[in-house]
Amino acid sequence: MSETAPIEEEARPENETSDSDAQFAEDRTLSPEFVRAVADAIEAEDAEAFEGLTRELHPADIADLIGLLQEEDREGMITLLGGALHSEVLAELEEDLLEDIIEAMEPAKVAKAVAELDTDDAAFLLEDLDAEKQAEILSYATIEDRLALRAALDFEEESAGRLMQREFFAAPAFWTVGQIIDRLRGTEELPDRFYEVFVVDPAFKPVGSVPLSTLLKSPRDTVIETIMTSRDMHPVPAVMDQEEVAYLFEQYNLISAPVVDDAERLIGMITVDDVVEMVREETQEDMLALGGVEADTGLSDTVFETVRSRFSWLAVNLATAILASLVIALFDAAIGQVVALAILMPIVASMGGNAGTQTLTVVVRSLATKDLTASNAARIVFREALVGFLNGVIFAVIMGALAGVWFYMSGWGGESEAMRLGGVVGAAMIINLLAAGLAGILIPIGLQRAGADPAVSSAVFVTTITDIVGFFVFLGLAAIVLL
Amino acid sequence: MSETAPIEEEARPENETSDSDAQFAEDRTLSPEFVRAVADAIEAEDAEAFEGLTRELHPADIADLIGLLQEEDREGMITLLGGALHSEVLAELEEDLLEDIIEAMEPAKVAKAVAELDTDDAAFLLEDLDAEKQAEILSYATIEDRLALRAALDFEEESAGRLMQREFFAAPAFWTVGQIIDRLRGTEELPDRFYEVFVVDPAFKPVGSVPLSTLLKSPRDTVIETIMTSRDMHPVPAVMDQEEVAYLFEQYNLISAPVVDDAERLIGMITVDDVVEMVREETQEDMLALGGVEADTGLSDTVFETVRSRFSWLAVNLATAILASLVIALFDAAIGQVVALAILMPIVASMGGNAGTQTLTVVVRSLATKDLTASNAARIVFREALVGFLNGVIFAVIMGALAGVWFYMSGWGGESEAMRLGGVVGAAMIINLLAAGLAGILIPIGLQRAGADPAVSSAVFVTTITDIVGFFVFLGLAAIVLL
Repeated sequence: MSETAPIEEEARPENETSDSDAQFAEDRTLSPEFVRAVADAIEAEDAEAFEGLTRELHPADIADLIGLLQEEDREGMITLLGGALHSEVLAELEEDLLEDIIEAMEPAKVAKAVAELDTDDAAFLLEDLDAEKQAEILSYATIEDRLALRAALDFEEESAGRLMQREFFAAPAFWTVGQIIDRLRGTEELPDRFYEVFVVDPAFKPVGSVPLSTLLKSPRDTVIETIMTSRDMHPVPAVMDQEEVAYLFEQYNLISAPVVDDAERLIGMITVDDVVEMVREETQEDMLALGGVEADTGLSDTVFETVRSRFSWLAVNLATAILASLVIALFDAAIGQVVALAILMPIVASMGGNAGTQTLTVVVRSLATKDLTASNAARIVFREALVGFLNGVIFAVIMGALAGVWFYMSGWGGESEAMRLGGVVGAAMIINLLAAGLAGILIPIGLQRAGADPAVSSAVFVTTITDIVGFFVFLGLAAIVLL
Repeated sequence: MSETAPIEEEARPENETSDSDAQFAEDRTLSPEFVRAVADAIEAEDAEAFEGLTRELHPADIADLIGLLQEEDREGMITLLGGALHSEVLAELEEDLLEDIIEAMEPAKVAKAVAELDTDDAAFLLEDLDAEKQAEILSYATIEDRLALRAALDFEEESAGRLMQREFFAAPAFWTVGQIIDRLRGTEELPDRFYEVFVVDPAFKPVGSVPLSTLLKSPRDTVIETIMTSRDMHPVPAVMDQEEVAYLFEQYNLISAPVVDDAERLIGMITVDDVVEMVREETQEDMLALGGVEADTGLSDTVFETVRSRFSWLAVNLATAILASLVIALFDAAIGQVVALAILMPIVASMGGNAGTQTLTVVVRSLATKDLTASNAARIVFREALVGFLNGVIFAVIMGALAGVWFYMSGWGGESEAMRLGGVVGAAMIINLLAAGLAGILIPIGLQRAGADPAVSSAVFVTTITDIVGFFVFLGLAAIVLL
């Protein structure tokens, strides 16, 4: 695949250079007025106005702009552009948008865009299409491109093999700096950008790497074996999951990494610019999972898709809420006698839910960054239990006193009942916050040990436990002590 | 500052190269047994055994190892190592650990480590120390280092000025590739690693950049003006917040960026390896904030620090839970007559809380990635309200029917009361899920417009609203319809 033709390479007007980024940060480049103007140009089918507005935009900003347009304007825009978007813009689109856009483009034009991109971006364009559409697009590609893409798509989604590009530069250890520079100047088939020369042994296994800055600092007659580093080279097996890949890049401050096959032969390269986005996505997946939202949803989904994707989680929550209600129902007689119990019980449950969520959030973060491992799990479990217990004691004192005073002042009972109610609230608070601490750490650890994602579904388990424990302990103790 | 001396540069043993990363992924390199062995070596004050165990480890892994040790072993380790850690290990430590470690080291040894690092890492070592300690350490540094570090520390924490390193390579536009290569080979004061040559005008303002790979591909007599790109160069003002910096790197796939002062003069460079970590931290800050945890907490905090940091959020939650209880208390007479209300009311509130959290999580994510902007806010608000309403209708039918049947079967009332109760549950569900959708989007948007962080404290607002609306509407309607 050849190098991508840049959309715009000339310098920006002088007075825009350094302000425009700050402006974008404040939402001025893609301001509502600007988006409106673009939409107007599309609706008026005014190709010249559209071109004038978008010419100076970076492909990534054009991709964002498309996300801000309404659906009918998106289709109108593709028509206006002659049925195709620039390959660099396609590579920057959000996944949920990309599928619609590719569907709307002619297969031959998609194939042309695919040919312009590095393998990783080209595979990204094709991966979510159905097999028939993929085959149709690939039928327009050259044999080399077709083979390379088929090989890329054979790797699982979110694996290193799918993320890598097949374009890289490798050299044997006995070459000199001068030989490499001469070769680089003469080779057409180089990746668009690269940051390291991989050093390979005769079996094409990577044995080290030389950052381009080191190469440039060294005299021409330096043998690269003497300047290569193996400590900062981390070969990535093609089957490795992208979450692990992201971890390696972050842990070892990598800029690029060689990808190897089962026989440890160099077959591709992953660069850090793809990893930055991946790190955000992986971390956001944890956040979304904790918030009870499916990871692959976005603002471009239709209302129906969104209702459906939120529904399943709410249905699980309904089931657990009913479970908690059944616990309350066990004590209907007590509530009938002392209505104050119904008023106070949500406080105990809510405090437990919040304390549990705090612990859970910290634990999910620590598991993702591998700060929490088998080596320190026992210590951290003990710590969280202790933190839960101590906060339980503090809030037991506060809420126990408040509840007693409230009960007494409202005239629901005498001094002795008020004190006993305060004691019940306090005891329930301690027990529930201890349970919250334990559930908040044991559930995600347990899920991870069982091979599941510790972020997905752990929130619902934790709050179910704190609801049930909260209601049961508070109402149960009250029934014993007060009635 | 000179280049950092590498800890270990020789090639790894043949059979370890490609397996070790996968092993680490499975927690075997820093296995509990390994950590135990290291702790034993420290406790036995066996420097040789310690050295043997840790020699092959990457500095980043040593930093992780230190995090897994108990506090007394950490101190023992510093003593064992002659009172200092290697500068590369220091640069990789978690913030909460770093402070303790630096405190335990002699100022002169900290100063030596500082001298070995690039400015950004050196500033990271010093930034959390008190002024006195900083001054003491800096008194051991050379005048140049002292001035550079003072300048770095003068920038606000989390600003581009603090993140940047002062080591970079720039050249005027009329230089040739050959001139640059010759200069690079002769210059000692280069950054450890760099990826681009910045092209500057006579006022030292960056006007473009040349990736090293482009430099290497071009003949010696090429004038760099002809190969530089300005589209892919995004100058970062030194005062820019790191969240914005991370956004620029991710949006434009940057590997490095020039940092400029108020007069747009080039004063430093930010590289992507620092950004990868920052992207994770910024995203995790959102996750932690949504989970009600302060961002700068970690597993290395003491139990007391953790109790204190969790306390404030739980206290806010207690206040809002009491507020919700006051709403329940308004209807104590109704609950006294129909205990089923107390049993069902948490279901309505809980569904609202969960639906609100779903919306809130998606919105916080979309605000962070700038998928949600002023341009499409109105449309997305309408969408979320519609999604809330539709899911409200679905769950109104399910839960209304369930509640009616439950009420009737339990013999709490007759057929007509059961139907009316079902209707009340359904109506309350629709209203609360609609309120949840609106609160879940309007609160974070409102916080952002007001200049606050949309993730911090929005969760508590949203659940307060869904609790209050849930209890008020359900109990209020029940009081009207049933009594």
